[in-house]
Amino acid sequence: MDARTLWDKYRTHLCVDKKAGFALDISRMNFSSSFLDSMEPKMQEAFSAMQSLVKGEIANPDERRMVGHYWLRNPSLAPDAQTKVEIESTVARINTFASEVHSGKIAPPNGGRYQHLLLVGIGGSALGPQFVNQALGTAADPIDLYCFDNTDPDGMEKVLGSIPDLSKTLCLVISKSGGTKETRNGQLVAKAAWQRAGLNFAQSFIAITMAGSELDKTATSEGWLARFPMWDWVGGRTSELSAVGLLAAALQGFNINEMLAGAGEMDELTASTVTAKNPAALMALMWHYVGSGKGLKDMVVLPYKDRLELFSRYLQQLVMESVGKELDLSGRVVNQGIAVYGNKGSTDQHAYVQQLREGLNNFFAIFIEVLNDRNALPGGISPQHDAKDVEVEPGVYCGDYLAGFFLGTRAALFEKDRESITITIDQVSARSVGQLIALFERTVGLYASLVNVNAYHQPGVEAGKKAAGQVLALQQKVIAHLKSSSQLLSASELAAALKEDNNTETVFKILWRLSANGRVAVEHGSSPFENRYGIAPR
Amino acid sequence: MDARTLWDKYRTHLCVDKKAGFALDISRMNFSSSFLDSMEPKMQEAFSAMQSLVKGEIANPDERRMVGHYWLRNPSLAPDAQTKVEIESTVARINTFASEVHSGKIAPPNGGRYQHLLLVGIGGSALGPQFVNQALGTAADPIDLYCFDNTDPDGMEKVLGSIPDLSKTLCLVISKSGGTKETRNGQLVAKAAWQRAGLNFAQSFIAITMAGSELDKTATSEGWLARFPMWDWVGGRTSELSAVGLLAAALQGFNINEMLAGAGEMDELTASTVTAKNPAALMALMWHYVGSGKGLKDMVVLPYKDRLELFSRYLQQLVMESVGKELDLSGRVVNQGIAVYGNKGSTDQHAYVQQLREGLNNFFAIFIEVLNDRNALPGGISPQHDAKDVEVEPGVYCGDYLAGFFLGTRAALFEKDRESITITIDQVSARSVGQLIALFERTVGLYASLVNVNAYHQPGVEAGKKAAGQVLALQQKVIAHLKSSSQLLSASELAAALKEDNNTETVFKILWRLSANGRVAVEHGSSPFENRYGIAPR
Repeated sequence: MDARTLWDKYRTHLCVDKKAGFALDISRMNFSSSFLDSMEPKMQEAFSAMQSLVKGEIANPDERRMVGHYWLRNPSLAPDAQTKVEIESTVARINTFASEVHSGKIAPPNGGRYQHLLLVGIGGSALGPQFVNQALGTAADPIDLYCFDNTDPDGMEKVLGSIPDLSKTLCLVISKSGGTKETRNGQLVAKAAWQRAGLNFAQSFIAITMAGSELDKTATSEGWLARFPMWDWVGGRTSELSAVGLLAAALQGFNINEMLAGAGEMDELTASTVTAKNPAALMALMWHYVGSGKGLKDMVVLPYKDRLELFSRYLQQLVMESVGKELDLSGRVVNQGIAVYGNKGSTDQHAYVQQLREGLNNFFAIFIEVLNDRNALPGGISPQHDAKDVEVEPGVYCGDYLAGFFLGTRAALFEKDRESITITIDQVSARSVGQLIALFERTVGLYASLVNVNAYHQPGVEAGKKAAGQVLALQQKVIAHLKSSSQLLSASELAAALKEDNNTETVFKILWRLSANGRVAVEHGSSPFENRYGIAPR
Repeated sequence: MDARTLWDKYRTHLCVDKKAGFALDISRMNFSSSFLDSMEPKMQEAFSAMQSLVKGEIANPDERRMVGHYWLRNPSLAPDAQTKVEIESTVARINTFASEVHSGKIAPPNGGRYQHLLLVGIGGSALGPQFVNQALGTAADPIDLYCFDNTDPDGMEKVLGSIPDLSKTLCLVISKSGGTKETRNGQLVAKAAWQRAGLNFAQSFIAITMAGSELDKTATSEGWLARFPMWDWVGGRTSELSAVGLLAAALQGFNINEMLAGAGEMDELTASTVTAKNPAALMALMWHYVGSGKGLKDMVVLPYKDRLELFSRYLQQLVMESVGKELDLSGRVVNQGIAVYGNKGSTDQHAYVQQLREGLNNFFAIFIEVLNDRNALPGGISPQHDAKDVEVEPGVYCGDYLAGFFLGTRAALFEKDRESITITIDQVSARSVGQLIALFERTVGLYASLVNVNAYHQPGVEAGKKAAGQVLALQQKVIAHLKSSSQLLSASELAAALKEDNNTETVFKILWRLSANGRVAVEHGSSPFENRYGIAPR
C-alpha cells in the first residue's frame, strides 16, 4: 500500500474523540471495505444483544445471571432502584472509608496511620488492582500495595518480609464466591502473621465478597474492620470498577470518581450503534477479521509506557477467559479463543520483535501510544520539560525516543505484512485507565457476540479444581496409610494397597514431593521408581 | 490413553538426574515412538553442530562470530588460553568487587555502605538480572535491585523515586555494543539524577560493555568506579552467566559460583549424544513434534512458584529471538518461530486456563514443578514446617494446594488433548537457576539446528531501529521548520513544505504528540486533520 493510500485510509477510519482524549487507528489492518459491509448485519445483532444485556436481561444463560458491569459506571442504567442505590452507596462508602483511613479516623491498633495494604485475591480479584497500582502509583501515595495472589507459602513469606510495618497495614481479602482456596489460604497465612506480630488482626482486616458467602460469615463472626459487597451480576474479570478495584484504588489515593467517569465516557462512546463511530465495534471487527473469526492470530499487546506494562496481563484474563470457549451459544463445539501476550515497548523490541518481524506471521499487535511523556499531576497537565527532563541529544528527550521506537516498529512490522491496531490516549490517568478498561470490556462483549459465545462464564476452570481436590484427598490417604504402616513401601505398592492402581503416577509424585519436604522418609532404590517411603515414628 | 499405559510411558521417558535434583517428563506429549526414531539422524546432526559450536567454530555465520556462552561455565572448553583466563579472571574480579562492596572497602562517597543497585539495560542486559533477582532475592540481601529497562522518562522517574537513598546506590550500565539508545538515555537520566543530588556520579557508576565501545570510552573518560567486560562471542540473550548477570547477582549477595556450577552441571547433562539421556535434546524434539517443526503451537510457560514468575519473560526473549527467523541457514524463506507466554501457577489458572482447556488447542504447556515448598537457606534445606507454616486444613499446607493445582490442571488439560512437558527441580536456588538457564539455552540451540536456522543473530531488529531514527530526524525537521515559520501549518502543509508528502501521517503524529507535551502550539480545526501548528516565539 503506498503512502498516500495509507494516509487516506488513516483519515477515513480514525476513530477519535477529542473530549475523551482518545483515538483508535485501524489503518494498519489489511481488511477490505467489503469486509466491514459484510459484517454490518452481525454487528447490529451484537449491538442489540449488548443493549439487552445492559437492560438487565439474562446475558449469561448458563449461569442464569445478569451481567451488570456497565451499571457500575452509570447506576441509572441498573434494572431496578435497589441495585442503583446499592451501587451508589457502595461508592460513597468506599470514598468515606478511604478518607477516614487517610485522616487517621480509622487508625491502626498501635496508633499512627495505615500506610500499607495487603491485598489477598487471585484472578479478577488481583489483576485489576495490580494493573491500576502500576498505572497510577507513586512514591507519594498515602498507602502502598502488596499482594498475595497465589498459594505459594514461600511467595507469601517473601511478600510479608517486604511489608515495612505490619501494624500499619490493612489486609483486604477479596473473593466473590468466598470459596477460592488460594485466597482462603492467603487469608489464613495473613491472619497468622498478624497474630505472630501480637496484633489483633480483625481490627485491620476487610472483606469484599457476596453477602452470605463463607468469607462473609468469617468476617462477620471474627469481627473484621469492614465488609464491602460483590454482586452476583459482576464477573470477576469485569470487577475492577466494583468495590474489588475501587476500594484498593481509593485507599491508595487514586481518584476513583475519575476512574468511573472515564469508564462511563467510554461506555457512552461504545454504546453507539454506528459502527464507524464505535471504537469497541471497530476493534471487535478487526479481531474478527485478523483471526478469521476463529482466533487464528495471537494478540500482542504493546503499550509504549512503563505504567501500562501490566495491562497485557489484565487483558490476558479479560479476553482469554471471556472468549476461550469450547461451545458456542447453540451448544456447537467451536473451540474459540484469542491468545494474548505482551509487556511493553520499547523493551519488548529487545526481546521478541525479531520474531514478530521475521518469524511466524501468527499475531497482530495492539499498540498503546501515550501522548504525554509524563503523567499529569492532580489538577492539570505537567509540562514536558520539568527540571528532571534530560536532553539526550540537542533538542531530543527520552520520550521522543519512546515515540520514535513505537512508530518505527509499527512501520517495520507493517512493511512485512504484520498488522496492528493503535490506541492513542492523552496520558495515563485515573480517567484514561477507566477508559481503557471499559473499551476492552465492551470489545470483548461485542466480539463474543460476533463469534456467538457466552463471554460471561468460565466452565472450563472447574475440571482442574476438581482434579486438584482429588490429588489432595489422595495425599491424605497416602499419609494416613504410611502413618499406620510399619514397613517402607514403593509408590506402586502403596497405590496397590490403597486400591489406587490407576493413580500410581500421582502417588509417586506425591511421595516424591513429601519426601523432598521432609514429611516422609525415603530409602533410595536403584531408580526413583524403586524408592521406598515411610513415616517413621518420631 | 489409559492410566497404566501412561504410567509406563512416564517411567520409560522420565529423564531424571538425582545429583542435579532435576527431572524432565515428556509423558504428556502424544508423540509416537516412531517420531523419536525418525528424528534421530537429525538429532545427531544437531549434536555435531553443537560440538563444533562449543569448540569455537563460527556458529553464527552471518555475523562471523563464535558462540561461547558454554565456556562461561567451563572455561576449559574455551578455544584458546587467553579466553579461558579472561573468563576466569572476570569471575574472580566480580567476586572480589562484590565482597569489597559488602565489606565497605568500596564505599559510597558520603560514607556508609552501598545498599542499592540501579541497573540500566534492556533486553538481554535486563531480563536475566530481573529474573534472577525475583528468583533469589530476599529482604535480607545486602543490596536490592532497581532497573531502567526502557526510555520512558516517567517510568525512570518513578524508579528513581522508589530508591531510598541515591547516595548509597551503585549504578550499573550494561550494553554489549555500548550503543543501545534506551540504555544511553537511561545512563544520562541516572547521571543527571546523581548530579541533582549533589553526588559525584562517576564514583558510583559501573559499566559492562565490549572493550572500545562508546560506553567503554565514556566510562573511561569520566572515570567511572569500574568496568567489566562483555565479549563478542556472548550474545545478549545468553549473557546471564557472563558479567552481565553475575555482577548484579554477586552484588545482591547471591552465590554466583553456585549459579555457574548449576549451569555447568546442566551443560554436562545436555552434552550427551544419547538422546534419551539428554533433557535438552528431548525437549527440542518435543517442541519440534508439537509444532510440526514450524512453531504451530505457542509455548505456555507455567512455573508453579512465585519466584519463577519472570522465567517465562526471560524465555520469551531466549526462544523467540533465537528461533524467530525469516530465513534458514541456506537462505530459504521459512518464517520460523515459537510464541512464548505465561506467568505462574496457580495464578494463571484464574486468568486463562479457561481458554487453554476449552478454547483453541494452539499451544503446549511447560510446567515447572518445585518440590520444596521453601527455598533452602544457605547451607542446607529448610524444613517444610517452620514456625511460619500454617495448617490451612488438618494436615494440609499451602504448598500442598500449589502442588495439587499443578497436577490437577495438568490432568484437566491432558484429558482434553492439551499437551505438556513437566520440568521438576528440587528447589529454587542459585544452582537450579543456573540449571534452568543452561537447559533452555541448549534446547534452543538444538531446536534451531533441527529447523536449520541461525539461533545466534537477530537481523530483524534493525529495521525498526532504522525507522525510528527516521522518525526522530523528521521530528527535528518539523521543529526546525516551525521555529522558522511565522504561520501556523497543518500536517499536510508542513509535510509538503518539507517535501515529505509520503510521510504526512508521521508528521501528523509527531505534531499531535509535540502539542500534547506543550512543545508546539495548536489551533484546533473542525477535525484533527485540520489542526494547525506553530512554535510561537517565547
